[in-house]
Amino acid sequence: MEIPVRAASHSYSVTIGKGILNEAVAAVNDLFAKADKIIVLTDENVWSAQQSYFEANFPHAFRLLVMPAGEKCKSFDNYNAVQTYLLEQKCTRKSMIIAFGGGAVGDLAGFAAATYMRGIPFIQIPTTILAHDSAVGGKTAINHALGKNMIGAFYQPEAVIFDTIFLHSLSEKEIRSGMAEVIKHALISDAHWVEELLEGDRITGLPEDLLANYLAHGIQVKAAIVEQDETEQSVRKYLNLGHTYGHAIEAAAGYGRVAHGEAVMIGLIYSLLLSEKYGKVDHQFTKRFLHFAIENGYPFEAVQEFTFEQLTEYLLKDKKADYGQLQFVLLETIGQPFVQKVELEQCREIDRQLRALLVEVQQ
Amino acid sequence: MEIPVRAASHSYSVTIGKGILNEAVAAVNDLFAKADKIIVLTDENVWSAQQSYFEANFPHAFRLLVMPAGEKCKSFDNYNAVQTYLLEQKCTRKSMIIAFGGGAVGDLAGFAAATYMRGIPFIQIPTTILAHDSAVGGKTAINHALGKNMIGAFYQPEAVIFDTIFLHSLSEKEIRSGMAEVIKHALISDAHWVEELLEGDRITGLPEDLLANYLAHGIQVKAAIVEQDETEQSVRKYLNLGHTYGHAIEAAAGYGRVAHGEAVMIGLIYSLLLSEKYGKVDHQFTKRFLHFAIENGYPFEAVQEFTFEQLTEYLLKDKKADYGQLQFVLLETIGQPFVQKVELEQCREIDRQLRALLVEVQQ
Repeated sequence: MEIPVRAASHSYSVTIGKGILNEAVAAVNDLFAKADKIIVLTDENVWSAQQSYFEANFPHAFRLLVMPAGEKCKSFDNYNAVQTYLLEQKCTRKSMIIAFGGGAVGDLAGFAAATYMRGIPFIQIPTTILAHDSAVGGKTAINHALGKNMIGAFYQPEAVIFDTIFLHSLSEKEIRSGMAEVIKHALISDAHWVEELLEGDRITGLPEDLLANYLAHGIQVKAAIVEQDETEQSVRKYLNLGHTYGHAIEAAAGYGRVAHGEAVMIGLIYSLLLSEKYGKVDHQFTKRFLHFAIENGYPFEAVQEFTFEQLTEYLLKDKKADYGQLQFVLLETIGQPFVQKVELEQCREIDRQLRALLVEVQQ
Repeated sequence: MEIPVRAASHSYSVTIGKGILNEAVAAVNDLFAKADKIIVLTDENVWSAQQSYFEANFPHAFRLLVMPAGEKCKSFDNYNAVQTYLLEQKCTRKSMIIAFGGGAVGDLAGFAAATYMRGIPFIQIPTTILAHDSAVGGKTAINHALGKNMIGAFYQPEAVIFDTIFLHSLSEKEIRSGMAEVIKHALISDAHWVEELLEGDRITGLPEDLLANYLAHGIQVKAAIVEQDETEQSVRKYLNLGHTYGHAIEAAAGYGRVAHGEAVMIGLIYSLLLSEKYGKVDHQFTKRFLHFAIENGYPFEAVQEFTFEQLTEYLLKDKKADYGQLQFVLLETIGQPFVQKVELEQCREIDRQLRALLVEVQQ
């Protein structure tokens, strides 16, 4: 299945399906024909799990840089190391980068491509559910010692090739993390889809075809938003539903302990509580959604590890924050997002409500 | 005088004139009204020479980061230090960076703005003749240990404010360096203008009004090209006339010893010799142009310090190089540039001709 993304800076396709790597690479042969060198950037975990399938199905000669797995690859030092590698390999403006891995590899490889000689082409080949989100839309970034994703660029790939065969090796934690972004895409776009998810099977055990459908649906939601607003001046902010509080939990816990999507799920509950106040979301829906999330194993115990004061520092670092005031994406009703400024005192009150609700629901 | 730059990504104005800082800043007050913080990035030399005028004429409160002068400020480490400063100052996506200085400050500040939180607004306030070139058109970059300007982005400023009062404190070397880019703008656009320059006063002693006219003319030439081709896919390459060989000289000498524009002037002579072969440039013109350059104090003795083999390494690192083949911008006739692939053996022959001509002319 092919999903077009018509971003303002340029258009490209996301191809999604099982076992499509070879065919999808052939379909963009014109991009490869223009490349003087192909550099595959990946991480040690992805490469050890996927090397044989990749080599059997990627028809071009390539040079390989295997990086440390996880957020570590997005460090300033590793970004410098990637640029050093590209220069040592004598890459030119016509060299092509392949980002082969999860969100961290895609973010780093995309930023390296965005900034090597002021920009060279790159293709995303995501290997996780989470990366159905991060690989589409051109947000690239590395981490700074003072904040995650603080340095980056909007820079679109030439193509995204999403072969769902790579998802077979994911752990339950990785599936859970990735599905949080799928669920977020449902919450900001389609109440019926949300119902289907809430009523459906455990998200770590979805039939393969249904999972692929959900991923394609999520990508369509994201593509439609990116087409309207590539650089997050307006509606693209909706994609941050759950991320303000979620990022604070993720950062406070130390990256990696609570997976990105797990933290986003906690943030989604927080957003629903705020949406009860500023929108028309019903408290019964919030409770039902929280039950669904708990049954699916999202680690809400992480909230108890931190006081609101500890989270505040991270809340205030959010990139959407204007003039020091917090901005949240909320829901008017399910499927209808909007942006709302919220005072810190109000955030504290909702944090208190979240903690009380977690005690109530888990008794 | 106001010169519009209508780049594909966005449009802005270059304002040029004597003593215009205050008025030009007021003219873009809407940009400042949107900014939650203003950060002035400058270097120690510029700040010690220009602090009092800047403070007297810049009407907004600002925070100041003074960096080391020269190419040093474009190091990876200093780039990281700037990002650290912006994060420590709690800059948001609505904070505004002012690049106040020469080309190095502008390149670094522009790249920092391009990549802080995926891009925040910045204004160029250039203080050198050379920066009439670098401050317009959105090329931003930092240096990598393996090559100058290898990491960067195309990212346009919100405005360029070029107050020629800042030029009063320039040394002869800086004037000479900057004028090479003015002369390059003439060579790629206008044979009459080239004649006027060759017949005119010594370039380090031009009347102030005439200099301002030349700078405005150069900016117009550049703006027209950037409007057609923001990201150097085609005609923007013309702006690199003289830069391929020039960069090699500059790099071989070690940055700073031969100023950028001084090296470009050497590269312009090299390009003229190549243009005799591939275009219709007359050898008498090349000799006359070389006499003009020598009379104006450009340091051609730098060529003798290196063998062609020593320069080759740097020639091959040129960002225009495709598939390992060298690309030069040449002139069909004066004012008519084109791009030509040239084999390394041919480059060696022209290098030999340049050295012979320098001996002949200087005897």
